[in-house]
Amino acid sequence: MLKLFYAPGTCALACHIALEEAGADYEAVRLNFREAEQTKPEYLAINPKGRVPALVTGQGVLTENVAILAYIAQSFPAAKLAPLDDPFAFARIQAFNGYLASTVHVNHAHRVRGTRWADDPIAIADMKRKVPETVGASFALIEREMFKGPWVMGETYTIADPYLFTLGNWMEGDGVDPAKTPKILEHRQRMADRPAVQRVVAAEKA
Amino acid sequence: MLKLFYAPGTCALACHIALEEAGADYEAVRLNFREAEQTKPEYLAINPKGRVPALVTGQGVLTENVAILAYIAQSFPAAKLAPLDDPFAFARIQAFNGYLASTVHVNHAHRVRGTRWADDPIAIADMKRKVPETVGASFALIEREMFKGPWVMGETYTIADPYLFTLGNWMEGDGVDPAKTPKILEHRQRMADRPAVQRVVAAEKA
Repeated sequence: MLKLFYAPGTCALACHIALEEAGADYEAVRLNFREAEQTKPEYLAINPKGRVPALVTGQGVLTENVAILAYIAQSFPAAKLAPLDDPFAFARIQAFNGYLASTVHVNHAHRVRGTRWADDPIAIADMKRKVPETVGASFALIEREMFKGPWVMGETYTIADPYLFTLGNWMEGDGVDPAKTPKILEHRQRMADRPAVQRVVAAEKA
Repeated sequence: MLKLFYAPGTCALACHIALEEAGADYEAVRLNFREAEQTKPEYLAINPKGRVPALVTGQGVLTENVAILAYIAQSFPAAKLAPLDDPFAFARIQAFNGYLASTVHVNHAHRVRGTRWADDPIAIADMKRKVPETVGASFALIEREMFKGPWVMGETYTIADPYLFTLGNWMEGDGVDPAKTPKILEHRQRMADRPAVQRVVAAEKA
């Protein structure tokens, strides 16, 4: 059985939702970030990066949302979470998710994890100050250039949708007004209406 | 014919090498970053992010190394640049490349592109100061936990190899001593010995 390590409020929500949408047989294991469980030896033996998500499979451990989401889509083809027989369409999803991982999430992280890249309190404060601008610009680009609607890739729900939903939910906390990106805001509601999303959100809150 | 937009010294080298290894029929189009060609309307019409790489295909434009590299592997299966029939093995490559994109490249970027995330000169300087530590820690993790050898994924050369080679070449500039990661250093030489790599490096220098 697949085992997903996650913490509430993190980007692992994307994989959690994808597993639920796929109808996978999985166990979700919660880490307590307040007690820094992700940095303890037990967890580092699973994921030496000390981050979530990590997906334990029968073949070994996977990390990184871009990789895990693609793995879920490929392992549960009946769920049709990605166009598996069209390398270009598949790559468009990977490009979208790659942008979320390496630009949007990174911009966001400068608000709460600035110590990854600087130590001076002035630097940490200045990074934090700029987050509304950088995260806002990222979502504006997604709204204007990438999001097709009603789902990220158009008519079909894919592994790009739970990932956008996950990072999009952080907008308010990052000082970004979601009303400026109405398509992404509508998508948030469309996601919240899905039974699989509701089950996962409830499980992470429980 | 595929068309790759790149600039010398950038991460687009990974895709450039992969296209060459795949035996693809492609044209490499050089952008002049000193004249900020990547921010001009002509290029923004191709890639609104104003970054490289961008790969123009018959179906549309792809961005993000993680996506383009997977696309090249899937589009040229005879080149065997990824295990396409094993979702787990494929995801391991995507996870490796995802780490390069969202952690290693991001750590590096704080040396030369700090203005993406801060404005205060004190912040920019503090970010720059920390780069040897963050980039060094990333490569140490790769050396210790991820790199199998002789290639990234073990016995078989994959799309993870040109990407590691590309970012690994930045170590010295980032103030990181490559002698501390001997496996990655040997890999650099192994890559430099490949005819496809030599052709691409020469073309980017020409």
